[in-house]
Amino acid sequence: MGRPSAKERKPYNSDAILDRAVRVFLARGYDGASLDDIARAAGITKASIYYHVRSKEELLARGVGRALDALAAAMREPGATSGGAEARLRHIVRRTVEITVAMLPEVALLLRVRGNTRAERKIVARRRAFDHEMAAHVARAQRASEIRRDLDPRLAARLLFGMLNSITEWYRVGGELDADDIATAVFRLAFEGLDRRHPPRP
Amino acid sequence: MGRPSAKERKPYNSDAILDRAVRVFLARGYDGASLDDIARAAGITKASIYYHVRSKEELLARGVGRALDALAAAMREPGATSGGAEARLRHIVRRTVEITVAMLPEVALLLRVRGNTRAERKIVARRRAFDHEMAAHVARAQRASEIRRDLDPRLAARLLFGMLNSITEWYRVGGELDADDIATAVFRLAFEGLDRRHPPRP
Repeated sequence: MGRPSAKERKPYNSDAILDRAVRVFLARGYDGASLDDIARAAGITKASIYYHVRSKEELLARGVGRALDALAAAMREPGATSGGAEARLRHIVRRTVEITVAMLPEVALLLRVRGNTRAERKIVARRRAFDHEMAAHVARAQRASEIRRDLDPRLAARLLFGMLNSITEWYRVGGELDADDIATAVFRLAFEGLDRRHPPRP
Repeated sequence: MGRPSAKERKPYNSDAILDRAVRVFLARGYDGASLDDIARAAGITKASIYYHVRSKEELLARGVGRALDALAAAMREPGATSGGAEARLRHIVRRTVEITVAMLPEVALLLRVRGNTRAERKIVARRRAFDHEMAAHVARAQRASEIRRDLDPRLAARLLFGMLNSITEWYRVGGELDADDIATAVFRLAFEGLDRRHPPRP
């Protein structure tokens, strides 16, 4: 089929520009990427970018905002707000896997934001709020004695996020695994454990 | 008291220069950091750096080499080469926690290397070899039926590394936790699982 025509490749709306911007930020680093780089990658002029956004910071905020909004929405779903405490925790873990797989570049970029500018600090604050919510869900499940209580909930949340965030490092779109495979593996590893004596007796 | 004198702050050997180089690479990114930046951070001239190393690439290779050498040495320790398969896996997990905590900047830098130059590709290859060894240890413990067999060993190794590597993101030197606390939490989470019914019956 060959290369798509210039017209087909040209982003025609701000969503498509955001797609390109996220990828350019990932490849060059946010600090190292310019609006010129993004315009070139998108096959449009810098003026066309300014028609949609005011600044590079806005592109970053809206790009990682996709992932942050999806994660925040998952926290408000019925599965995360009603039912048993462990079931809620599992719901959030599963949805985090699904969102990470579905929005791989956005989540990868989100995890790299370090907070040097005001826009970046705002992103880091939203990311931290999500970390705290995860730790609160772990603590709630512990208070309900639905999960083991001999783990610091913040440390457990950090290790859980370590597993979940690592997806952005090794997941390949179109590979053998889908989100369900990964969620199943995370549940087996983190909730049941590698121990061979499974299922444990009550 | 107060600020150390210029003489005290001045690195006097290649180890001290490496310390500074690793931190500059972390702060500015390897691509974004120059030998001038490192010389300035070390309080010496660029010529003094060239007395110890030939290039920025050599500083990177030797900096992350500290972590890679320590990890490779751990893999050859008796705890990793003799005894039960699960015990070997646990030894490697524990030693990885200890090395990560002891060499936080070096391991953090190691995990950020992306492999754009030959030196970087060599580092990535060594890191991958360590990933494969971890997966091989998981597979060996599964064949020995010492850990559960319903997990892909490569996926299990990736999730384990996800937890272990995340230490570089959240560990604070001088904070409440030491390496033993973290290793204990990783064992509880990954080997026993969050499930409240612990210890499981044989």
